[in-house]
Amino acid sequence: MNRYFARGRRVAGWLAALAIISMSVAALDAQAQTEMKGLIDDLVAANRILYRQGVVDGFGHVSARHPGKPDRFLMSAAKAPGRVTAEDIMEFDLDGNPIDGKERPIYSERFIHSEVYKARANVNAVIHSHSPTVIPFSVTQVPLRAVHNTASFLAAGVPVFEMRKAAGMTNNLVTSSARGKALTETLGDRPVALLRGHGNVVVGPDLRRTVSRAIYTEVNARMLLQAVTLGGPITFIDPEENKQIESGRGTRITGHGVDRTWQMWLEEATR
Amino acid sequence: MNRYFARGRRVAGWLAALAIISMSVAALDAQAQTEMKGLIDDLVAANRILYRQGVVDGFGHVSARHPGKPDRFLMSAAKAPGRVTAEDIMEFDLDGNPIDGKERPIYSERFIHSEVYKARANVNAVIHSHSPTVIPFSVTQVPLRAVHNTASFLAAGVPVFEMRKAAGMTNNLVTSSARGKALTETLGDRPVALLRGHGNVVVGPDLRRTVSRAIYTEVNARMLLQAVTLGGPITFIDPEENKQIESGRGTRITGHGVDRTWQMWLEEATR
Amino acid sequence: MNRYFARGRRVAGWLAALAIISMSVAALDAQAQTEMKGLIDDLVAANRILYRQGVVDGFGHVSARHPGKPDRFLMSAAKAPGRVTAEDIMEFDLDGNPIDGKERPIYSERFIHSEVYKARANVNAVIHSHSPTVIPFSVTQVPLRAVHNTASFLAAGVPVFEMRKAAGMTNNLVTSSARGKALTETLGDRPVALLRGHGNVVVGPDLRRTVSRAIYTEVNARMLLQAVTLGGPITFIDPEENKQIESGRGTRITGHGVDRTWQMWLEEATR
Amino acid sequence: MNRYFARGRRVAGWLAALAIISMSVAALDAQAQTEMKGLIDDLVAANRILYRQGVVDGFGHVSARHPGKPDRFLMSAAKAPGRVTAEDIMEFDLDGNPIDGKERPIYSERFIHSEVYKARANVNAVIHSHSPTVIPFSVTQVPLRAVHNTASFLAAGVPVFEMRKAAGMTNNLVTSSARGKALTETLGDRPVALLRGHGNVVVGPDLRRTVSRAIYTEVNARMLLQAVTLGGPITFIDPEENKQIESGRGTRITGHGVDRTWQMWLEEATR
Repeated sequence: MNRYFARGRRVAGWLAALAIISMSVAALDAQAQTEMKGLIDDLVAANRILYRQGVVDGFGHVSARHPGKPDRFLMSAAKAPGRVTAEDIMEFDLDGNPIDGKERPIYSERFIHSEVYKARANVNAVIHSHSPTVIPFSVTQVPLRAVHNTASFLAAGVPVFEMRKAAGMTNNLVTSSARGKALTETLGDRPVALLRGHGNVVVGPDLRRTVSRAIYTEVNARMLLQAVTLGGPITFIDPEENKQIESGRGTRITGHGVDRTWQMWLEEATR
Repeated sequence: MNRYFARGRRVAGWLAALAIISMSVAALDAQAQTEMKGLIDDLVAANRILYRQGVVDGFGHVSARHPGKPDRFLMSAAKAPGRVTAEDIMEFDLDGNPIDGKERPIYSERFIHSEVYKARANVNAVIHSHSPTVIPFSVTQVPLRAVHNTASFLAAGVPVFEMRKAAGMTNNLVTSSARGKALTETLGDRPVALLRGHGNVVVGPDLRRTVSRAIYTEVNARMLLQAVTLGGPITFIDPEENKQIESGRGTRITGHGVDRTWQMWLEEATR
Repeated sequence: MNRYFARGRRVAGWLAALAIISMSVAALDAQAQTEMKGLIDDLVAANRILYRQGVVDGFGHVSARHPGKPDRFLMSAAKAPGRVTAEDIMEFDLDGNPIDGKERPIYSERFIHSEVYKARANVNAVIHSHSPTVIPFSVTQVPLRAVHNTASFLAAGVPVFEMRKAAGMTNNLVTSSARGKALTETLGDRPVALLRGHGNVVVGPDLRRTVSRAIYTEVNARMLLQAVTLGGPITFIDPEENKQIESGRGTRITGHGVDRTWQMWLEEATR
Repeated sequence: MNRYFARGRRVAGWLAALAIISMSVAALDAQAQTEMKGLIDDLVAANRILYRQGVVDGFGHVSARHPGKPDRFLMSAAKAPGRVTAEDIMEFDLDGNPIDGKERPIYSERFIHSEVYKARANVNAVIHSHSPTVIPFSVTQVPLRAVHNTASFLAAGVPVFEMRKAAGMTNNLVTSSARGKALTETLGDRPVALLRGHGNVVVGPDLRRTVSRAIYTEVNARMLLQAVTLGGPITFIDPEENKQIESGRGTRITGHGVDRTWQMWLEEATR
């Protein structure tokens, strides 16, 4: 990773990305530029963290809502997440159109992102993955529920999107706004939905917390699978417990919660 | 891997390989030489990728049909796939005879490859592996079926080859043209067949796509095993879904499908 | 890890830590300083070993009773265990108050440690983890019992702490002395207790042995899960066998038991 | 591993080991010295390979019969196998006594080795391990049987040694000749036996083949566990198939069988 992630290239990278992302960037003031740079750095890190943690393999993508323009979002060009650099970050509108594509390949399922941002104003980051232990729950009748504190957000329930109901026999890919809208309706106001035989979508109020949710969704799926293997009644995290757990996670406190794991994941991903 | 894969040795390697692979190589024109060099590079990479992804261990082999002579195929001398270099690539005819063996050891099960190429003109790459999670499906009655989009090609059905039916009590190895022919008949026109208590054979229209199939066959086997553990009715990828998914994979588009994962796997295998 | 763990920084680290840990350190004689330095080194190593062995991820913590003051214990500031350095080691009293916090973030569940030290005079080390294969046992009815010699200490029985019984619907975290006390009562005189939907607590007579217990609790959980998968009656380690096994582990003999594995784990963690 | 395994130290190591292993070494002629050096190198490699492949962790040991004196065997001093160097290799007699211990710690379960060598003249290597997926089979009623060609040697049957039957309630360790003899009687003329709640013993005609057996015993255990998870009747490797498979493995052929995997494992272990 070093050759892609070295400081020199990273700086060059976000400068290039800034130059690429719409004409209006030139008009950004200094503070907005700093904010944008931080978000691009985090978005590149998010790609590499999700790869390193086994949530994405060659497929999957992560996006963040544009900090200054709520009807835009940032996401990599079509590339394996573990190889994404700042130069790959592109800007899209909420119909999934690239603002300045420069003929780079783009993810065919970008509509997962555009439709979620359209429907949910309080969502600022979206992840689509083929999270490996999540997929078995998408093709069976066992609901993915929270058994571990760190994934308590699953206590809200995890619906399964069935493309066949929304669009009949297809390639089972979310390759249009219509399909993305159908998925978003299944998701409702929850943080996670599964896509049958395909993967999941994870959303959240900010990028780092959404990355954490995607990782602990996979971790919790492994634990629940093992609990089912052990058999008998399973004690799930109660929605009331989740409420109290989540309220303690709301802010960014140095050394706690998402901040603690992010620093570790970042170090692991750039090792 | 660096000491085997460094550019210097690689160049020396394919030159040596070109020199080795039949006298007619000298007569190849420049374009054919470039094509051959690319294929040898890909074949070495395929060996190392399949090892790095856990599809092969010390055993297993991967071959590609000769780009200029359809009745020949290229495959490594007998060696652990993760250690294969360009110098190891040999040429074989469709009876499994090496063209210029130079007394190197050769895989005793090369007839898996020769018989598939003989029977199926549209197959240009063959992989035999002891793919670990695939073997349990070969010794039980649970069919290996597609639960994940990326392995939709399994929707065609995955037959199990039983050597005892073809040849009685043997060493359970495909060490003759007759056994290879029997296996090929079980495979039929499908992309994957299992060998009971032994492994699988995976075929495809080109090398990179066949590598992808072998990897996602293993990934899908893990997911199906977990789905069986969860229990209840399982929703499989429908043959019609597979048809639409596969039609979208047909071409080599930069940044999409097989190209996206190949670039990642290559980077992982040469790290 | 090298940049955090290099000898130079480590020496600087324990000097800094000594300076930080209460004013009375200045009065320590040379022997006590050496003992303290050794313990801080071991505590940093314990954090990194537990991370490297997969017992802790970003969460979890490990502490040791102060060698000179039995009503104090040493533990890192709030940080992912795999990133802890000697500078992070802090001193706490048995109400969970930091002695000289220097405004560093502290673990909200430090009361797990303080209450165990308060209740059990023969315990000198405490580990709290989200040991992944242990958690499924905390949410089902299958008791975690010893199936492997190296985890024979589990033959004493592994109780499960249910926060709902102790404190009703909460965030399921041990964030007060009262909750810590309730957990300690469930633990009783045993080496391990599970926290439902959360993790475990592991205690022991010294730090290295407690680290070994935490690691083999996870290893044994994996084996028991597999034994349950195989089905049928399971032969557990008998309490009498445990008694004889544990009596042979009591001392620190070079090359045997805890010493043998500690040297290996240390090498793995600092590689 | 490099710092322990570098060529310079390795040469120094076997010289030191030669000097240590009994006074009679001085009298060895040049050919015998070369043979001994090769065996010590292989024994060190075997320790590191078994560690790298996950068959041993901090515990477990591997020995080889002395090439010149059939009533002696070579084994490391008490140390984690992954850390063994040539200097650690010691000579023992068939009562488990070290010939020139030099006060180094020795494995308390060396009687597993001494008794096997005493009882079986055609065995030249012995491995004891806590092979992780093997242990669940030792505490349940599911026999460990061969489902994969590479572990066909298990078709001879894998008995389980129950210490309680041989010696009552003990520490479940083979710490005497009497216990070693009882284990050897359970093993009979087979290549593998399990020790209930403890691990296994694997024997063979030479060191490299025995290492291969230990590794594929673990691999086969994983596959059988998965087959049991899938359920239904399982097709095992037939004893007659094993006979034909094993007869093809008898010799050391460059690039085939044990030679192929040994070269790979060696490279992995010294990477």
